[in-house]
Amino acid sequence: MGAEHVDCSIAATLAFVGDRWSLLILRDSFRGVRRFGDYCADLGIARNVLADRLDRLVDAGILHRVPYQERPVRNEYRLTEKGRDLSPALMALMRWGDRWAVEGAPPTILVHDACGEELEQLVRCPRCAVEVSPTHIRSRHPA
Amino acid sequence: MGAEHVDCSIAATLAFVGDRWSLLILRDSFRGVRRFGDYCADLGIARNVLADRLDRLVDAGILHRVPYQERPVRNEYRLTEKGRDLSPALMALMRWGDRWAVEGAPPTILVHDACGEELEQLVRCPRCAVEVSPTHIRSRHPA
Repeated sequence: MGAEHVDCSIAATLAFVGDRWSLLILRDSFRGVRRFGDYCADLGIARNVLADRLDRLVDAGILHRVPYQERPVRNEYRLTEKGRDLSPALMALMRWGDRWAVEGAPPTILVHDACGEELEQLVRCPRCAVEVSPTHIRSRHPA
Repeated sequence: MGAEHVDCSIAATLAFVGDRWSLLILRDSFRGVRRFGDYCADLGIARNVLADRLDRLVDAGILHRVPYQERPVRNEYRLTEKGRDLSPALMALMRWGDRWAVEGAPPTILVHDACGEELEQLVRCPRCAVEVSPTHIRSRHPA
């Protein structure tokens, strides 16, 4: 076994959400999509594939089922805390794709609900109270 | 074709870097690893797999080759601007994995080179000058 499984949280994350359909389902979830038929219509995904990916995301604790109808029981899918915590990762992947992987204008931009302004994502040092660029980031093992 | 290829920068990004070995190679690149033998030793990756992934990352413009020896020619691999711009995505994936996908303490933490303090990643609205939580992020098509 290489370092792949031993010490890399990046690889560990991708084991959960590295599948493209899973990412697209999660993107929809962040946009407020909750119901099977709405994911289907939005993504153009086959129903059996969607059912499989939703099951996996529920098993992983990233989505949870909440009934919205009783007879017959129908569930919708909502992000858990674990799921909502993927927001920075999806945002960062999207921004890189906007810049480097899609042609022309970004298909979607992320804005502040209060004012509609496009959001920034940044890295900050809480001690120095400054924004930190990639060349000033170091990694180390925790003390 | 579903929305997968049409309007999703997230999926577009993963098409470049969604492969686990590629991510691990990039993680090493950010830590300063540059030479074939050093990637090999650090990752425990088969030489043919490493050569294939390095070729793909060079073809994608994420790494570039720089000769460090003349006879015979030997190249090292350095991040391009496009590659360095993956820093926020790798950081976000790593932080989610630290919290949700690995057991115990995070294997690695990211710190400010100037002071050694652990870094934060956050989303900010430049107009309101406030930090924005995931529930206050909306997506829209660009004007």
